[in-house]
Amino acid sequence: MTVHTLKELAALVQGRVLGDADREIRDASPLTRARASEITFAADDKNFKLLRKSSAGACLVPEQRADTLATALTSEGLATSLVAVADPLDSFVAILKKFRPQPAPPRIGISPQAHIDPSATVGADTQIYPGVVIDARARVGARCLLYPGVYIGPDSTLGDDCVLHPHVVLYYGVTVGNRVILHAGVVLGADGFGYRFRNGRFEKIPQLGSVRVDDDVEIGANTTVDRGMIGPTVVGAGTKLDNLVMVGHNCEIGRHNVFASQVGMAGSSSTGDYVRLGGQAGTADHVHLGQGVSVGAKAGVHRDIPAGETHVGCPARPELEELKIVMATARTPEMRKQIRDLEKRLEELEQRLSAATGG
Amino acid sequence: MTVHTLKELAALVQGRVLGDADREIRDASPLTRARASEITFAADDKNFKLLRKSSAGACLVPEQRADTLATALTSEGLATSLVAVADPLDSFVAILKKFRPQPAPPRIGISPQAHIDPSATVGADTQIYPGVVIDARARVGARCLLYPGVYIGPDSTLGDDCVLHPHVVLYYGVTVGNRVILHAGVVLGADGFGYRFRNGRFEKIPQLGSVRVDDDVEIGANTTVDRGMIGPTVVGAGTKLDNLVMVGHNCEIGRHNVFASQVGMAGSSSTGDYVRLGGQAGTADHVHLGQGVSVGAKAGVHRDIPAGETHVGCPARPELEELKIVMATARTPEMRKQIRDLEKRLEELEQRLSAATGG
Amino acid sequence: MTVHTLKELAALVQGRVLGDADREIRDASPLTRARASEITFAADDKNFKLLRKSSAGACLVPEQRADTLATALTSEGLATSLVAVADPLDSFVAILKKFRPQPAPPRIGISPQAHIDPSATVGADTQIYPGVVIDARARVGARCLLYPGVYIGPDSTLGDDCVLHPHVVLYYGVTVGNRVILHAGVVLGADGFGYRFRNGRFEKIPQLGSVRVDDDVEIGANTTVDRGMIGPTVVGAGTKLDNLVMVGHNCEIGRHNVFASQVGMAGSSSTGDYVRLGGQAGTADHVHLGQGVSVGAKAGVHRDIPAGETHVGCPARPELEELKIVMATARTPEMRKQIRDLEKRLEELEQRLSAATGG
Repeated sequence: MTVHTLKELAALVQGRVLGDADREIRDASPLTRARASEITFAADDKNFKLLRKSSAGACLVPEQRADTLATALTSEGLATSLVAVADPLDSFVAILKKFRPQPAPPRIGISPQAHIDPSATVGADTQIYPGVVIDARARVGARCLLYPGVYIGPDSTLGDDCVLHPHVVLYYGVTVGNRVILHAGVVLGADGFGYRFRNGRFEKIPQLGSVRVDDDVEIGANTTVDRGMIGPTVVGAGTKLDNLVMVGHNCEIGRHNVFASQVGMAGSSSTGDYVRLGGQAGTADHVHLGQGVSVGAKAGVHRDIPAGETHVGCPARPELEELKIVMATARTPEMRKQIRDLEKRLEELEQRLSAATGG
Repeated sequence: MTVHTLKELAALVQGRVLGDADREIRDASPLTRARASEITFAADDKNFKLLRKSSAGACLVPEQRADTLATALTSEGLATSLVAVADPLDSFVAILKKFRPQPAPPRIGISPQAHIDPSATVGADTQIYPGVVIDARARVGARCLLYPGVYIGPDSTLGDDCVLHPHVVLYYGVTVGNRVILHAGVVLGADGFGYRFRNGRFEKIPQLGSVRVDDDVEIGANTTVDRGMIGPTVVGAGTKLDNLVMVGHNCEIGRHNVFASQVGMAGSSSTGDYVRLGGQAGTADHVHLGQGVSVGAKAGVHRDIPAGETHVGCPARPELEELKIVMATARTPEMRKQIRDLEKRLEELEQRLSAATGG
Repeated sequence: MTVHTLKELAALVQGRVLGDADREIRDASPLTRARASEITFAADDKNFKLLRKSSAGACLVPEQRADTLATALTSEGLATSLVAVADPLDSFVAILKKFRPQPAPPRIGISPQAHIDPSATVGADTQIYPGVVIDARARVGARCLLYPGVYIGPDSTLGDDCVLHPHVVLYYGVTVGNRVILHAGVVLGADGFGYRFRNGRFEKIPQLGSVRVDDDVEIGANTTVDRGMIGPTVVGAGTKLDNLVMVGHNCEIGRHNVFASQVGMAGSSSTGDYVRLGGQAGTADHVHLGQGVSVGAKAGVHRDIPAGETHVGCPARPELEELKIVMATARTPEMRKQIRDLEKRLEELEQRLSAATGG
């Protein structure tokens, strides 16, 4: 177990200690769980409130709020030391790394048990584990890391500084940019789901397009991106896909999108930049989500969404509209009773009126 | 970049050119994106309309509509050349292949770095990549292609002319027919999800059945089909499953079904022939979908559906019924107001009547 | 085809035969499909009813019900022999194993084609297939079975008596207990989905925690459990996860939970013991499901659920409440008509009253 004084940790992140700088810190923890021997961080008002109930020994806070917070804690008799820093999350991660050493990246070179076609090329300083297969004419960039079981199909291209975790599969002709991270089991370029019904059976329509994944993309474990029928299925630069996501053939995902896990995007759909989809959301085919669109978890999108809008529900609707419907729907059992009651009263009234008017 | 004259391409598909046969064509594209140097196709009325707004240099159209379309385009001053063919999609794919050459199927034989149990058999002309493992008594047919990381468990059988993409796993005793395509990461025959709650814990019920995948099936990347508890889980001939689909133990899927991605079929369910499920749809266990049933995306099916019906929604209902409910539900906020309004008017009326009748 | 007399099979399970003990039995089958040459089992009232319509040659039944059932069957002229046993399911499985011999577990030792880092350790009697990679300082327990393509990352630990099916991936620093079964394609410890939006792009927040899977857990094919950001993502002892499940970073799943296939649990959620989630259900992040909670298939849980409750629907609500809403919602088209009708009658009444009172 590593132990650091708070002074040492503060120095690591150029922080200013408010409180006991000699306190011994044994771990870094989330705010709600941190104990007296642990350091945590708080970066917004919600967390500043939680800090007053925390047992944390030390807490990283933003420089501009540090003195006020220290005064408040002291006045409440709390012993938590503060460390004033420019960016609490950044500093927390830096300190966390001291307590959670990661294994050094492997320096294994190119394993002689990898199978690299003579027509393929591999850039300088790329590490390749045993069991990797790089097929004909594939090109792998520099400083990449290819874990066991990675398969790079014929004519596929991988940029520089990529990490492909175990069993990542690139079918033929797939293009991946620089600094891309593909987690275990990712499949890029499997045939799109295209058939033609003829003579009582489904005939395969050849899927002759490809997949293009741009720079700085990260794709989660067991996610699949199918190849286009004609052109490429595209995942734009900086986009992050979580685990078990499905991107259908011919889709064009913009830049800096974020798809939570188990999202499904049917064929030929597209998104602008900065689009977010919640977990298990799905889109119909040929749908476009404009720039900055946000889609709620489990939503089912069946038509285009204009830029900037937030849609939720299934069928997906603008958030406010859907919330009103969900709230009103919850009252439908009551509404049925109200309607029955109104009917009874109305009937009575009709009879009374008929009686009164001699009707 | 390949370049062909339209004349050459028309000859390739036995087509008749209406317009400039010497036009140079540099690529094949979808109708909505095709440019003046590109050829596209149009096969139905919807596409014939889009064709009038297209910038495509050439378009494959059905023979029986070609002359009318040519006249219409000319009268509107459009320069798109037409190529009259028997089947525009077929012809388009043939031409697309000229512009998107696929790598030749590998002729690698059986890699010495594959691991084939001495008791296993492999048919003539089957290609096996390094890292494939074929276990005891397994039988692999002729003219198959097994990519890296494929594992064929003991006593499993694979027919002729199958393609198993990287990391496909067949557990023991799985039977796969002829001309089956299994995409990367498909898992056939993992244990069904069967437990028995006893003494405060879940005891595993041994799953002693198997999986049978019939001829001409295609299964998408990372899809899983669990083994039955007693008998086989079945995927009928000609059926196509998309990516990330789950088929539970004891299911019996009919012939020529189509399941879109992320569909989940719970244990012991079954389908007739020609059943279609939309993306992310799910069925409860022990449910039967009759021949020709169609289920919408994201639907949740909890009871049998008679042959030929289309059900949507969650809980799934006949399409028309569900559409009416969805439309009416969208008006529930308005309905609540209407009910409140009716109550007010009714109350007023009751008071007026009481006043009038001296009540 | 194996053939046993009913007498032999009864002896195998210490059962008492009521009926023809010399009957030849050729297979074991589910109750609804069993034929005259087959044995089946019935353990509850529902099955006792089905038994009267069954063509099964023999049926395992509970000792305390055997005589009554035999009398009933005989009086209806049914020829099914009964076998009275203490536990029909247990006995059925024992007999089923006679008809469905499983391949003996492989005795392959440690394949010389596996790649085991010199700093890793492997326990006694563990079987390791070709193509397995065990990385630096990893520890694998005794009597484990590691199928082809398994990857054990640096500093990961695997207990005793575990089975890891093909292509299971443990990233670095993952801890797995004893008697754990991980099906093909399971990924433990991929980076949690954590980013920070800054300067127009999503910056990766390092995920420095880990994954801990406790004793007697079983995880289905292609399921993923992400590593925590700070601490471990936990799967408690005895818990069973089906195929294609996603467990987000920092989640803490209790003991003896059961998650059906395609469930998604967003980051930092937690469950008590004995929690059940139906297929395709999802939870928002930071949600807690108390002990014994049950969540319906396809439900969307967005807030804590108290211990013992059953919630269904999306948004998830207590079961009874949701059922009432679903039923009432199905009547909304009718309710709209009723409201319109009430409005008409009310208007008429208002006019009549005005006329009557000279209003």
